[in-house]
Amino acid sequence: MKTYLDCLPCLLNQALNASRAATDDEELHRQVLNRVAEMIPELSLGLNPPEIAQQCYRLIHEVTGNSDPFREAKEVATRAVLGIYPRLKEVVATAAEPLLTACKLAIAGNSIDLGPSYNNHGSVDNIMEEALASPLAVDNYEQFLSGIKKAHRLLYLGDNAGETVFDRILIEELLRVKELEIDFVVRDKPVINDATLRDALAAGIHKVARIISNGSDAPATILAQCSPEMLELYNTADIIIAKGQGNYESLSEEPGNIFFFLKAKCPLVARTMGVNVGDAILKQSHNAND
Amino acid sequence: MKTYLDCLPCLLNQALNASRAATDDEELHRQVLNRVAEMIPELSLGLNPPEIAQQCYRLIHEVTGNSDPFREAKEVATRAVLGIYPRLKEVVATAAEPLLTACKLAIAGNSIDLGPSYNNHGSVDNIMEEALASPLAVDNYEQFLSGIKKAHRLLYLGDNAGETVFDRILIEELLRVKELEIDFVVRDKPVINDATLRDALAAGIHKVARIISNGSDAPATILAQCSPEMLELYNTADIIIAKGQGNYESLSEEPGNIFFFLKAKCPLVARTMGVNVGDAILKQSHNAND
Repeated sequence: MKTYLDCLPCLLNQALNASRAATDDEELHRQVLNRVAEMIPELSLGLNPPEIAQQCYRLIHEVTGNSDPFREAKEVATRAVLGIYPRLKEVVATAAEPLLTACKLAIAGNSIDLGPSYNNHGSVDNIMEEALASPLAVDNYEQFLSGIKKAHRLLYLGDNAGETVFDRILIEELLRVKELEIDFVVRDKPVINDATLRDALAAGIHKVARIISNGSDAPATILAQCSPEMLELYNTADIIIAKGQGNYESLSEEPGNIFFFLKAKCPLVARTMGVNVGDAILKQSHNAND
Repeated sequence: MKTYLDCLPCLLNQALNASRAATDDEELHRQVLNRVAEMIPELSLGLNPPEIAQQCYRLIHEVTGNSDPFREAKEVATRAVLGIYPRLKEVVATAAEPLLTACKLAIAGNSIDLGPSYNNHGSVDNIMEEALASPLAVDNYEQFLSGIKKAHRLLYLGDNAGETVFDRILIEELLRVKELEIDFVVRDKPVINDATLRDALAAGIHKVARIISNGSDAPATILAQCSPEMLELYNTADIIIAKGQGNYESLSEEPGNIFFFLKAKCPLVARTMGVNVGDAILKQSHNAND
């Protein structure tokens, strides 16, 4: 997905939020804003939004000296969702369609995002209740189910910390219905509140899948930046689950049998998908080879 | 009121909205964003937000060649409120407290604002209904009433086009209860959708008050930029009604027996006033000499 002019004020806003999470020094907050403002005239809109966000978060690290402003927020989110893990398991187990329910919960978990302005995800209880009450605004679940039935190797591209616990529950449900080899991909370095190896381990992903880094510090899956190991898995997976807006923005035009699981969090992503902000999306890539 | 770092992303967003209203040329939208971004590192936060917005809107004029991007929007808003003028008059005339009702309507009319992101004012019917249904979150009406009883000369600092029709109804009600000499102040040149002489005339303000320009193109009342005539009226008025956020931001620390009538439209203004975004405010200046 290309970058729109509307992304530029949003970028400045994200930079301010992240710099405040990184340090209490208001002088440094101003320096971050000035540096991001100086970037704007040079930015190519041919880049996708996460490529621009990556530059911005590298700059926040450089100015504030803090490489992981959302460390604590990520840990809090993971603990909060782990706290309702038994209830989530019960909800899935007693659902009329357990796999569909696990998918809806995994999509709802994508609300735990500290990047775009849409981050009022409320409590984890709210996330769970909303997931169960709301229909999917884009619903390619039948195609996904058909893809899973034919698949042996699944690549799962994670997004945010905390959301990873919802991902684990979906993976457990997938493994209950089908013998699958699953690789769970994390960001190589901290960026926003995206899950790294540490966050995936905290969520217990290692108990159900192999965790690998994508080799990049983008809040997305930018194939040109990924490690050879990651690209090998990407190219040979039978089916790919890509969580979140960043992975959608970076992969919507790429090949692969991809299913995007996300909440539409910004007006532009929502518009390109023909949905409303806040809607839950399970969308098959238009490049999918089903 | 001082400028916060949060105002800077908002400024960029306003610049984008206004440049889109000014021209369909996307290349010019980008140029506006680049020029505003370049302004950011140089901006002093000692300026108040309307002083910064003034620089931004001058730049939009310079880049796009359009000095009045919201011309049509202002005319549409004025016509829409004039369309319910008879109903508004009826509502005030039959209210238990007609002057209070006229005040609440004049405050609700401040929703018609194309500057900050909070501009989802809905229809004029919604504005009217919300005004009648909602209490004032800051309620200095008794002090205002007491001030009016003692006053002979009232200075009314207008804000947006369309809102001016609500202002006219309040002025008519004030004149019904008290003999007053009223001057209605407009911006000297177009800025955002603020009322100029043309918009005040379209709303019929000249039928109830003398209209004067403040001599400035700021979306506010910046005393250092005002004409001698306007300053003379400001300094000799017994009571001043200042409509909207811009007038509040520029006058909250200035002397004068001012009553601020506004909707809190941005989180920072709301926070400084201890209210929520969307709340209706009738606030006496802490410098008021009552």
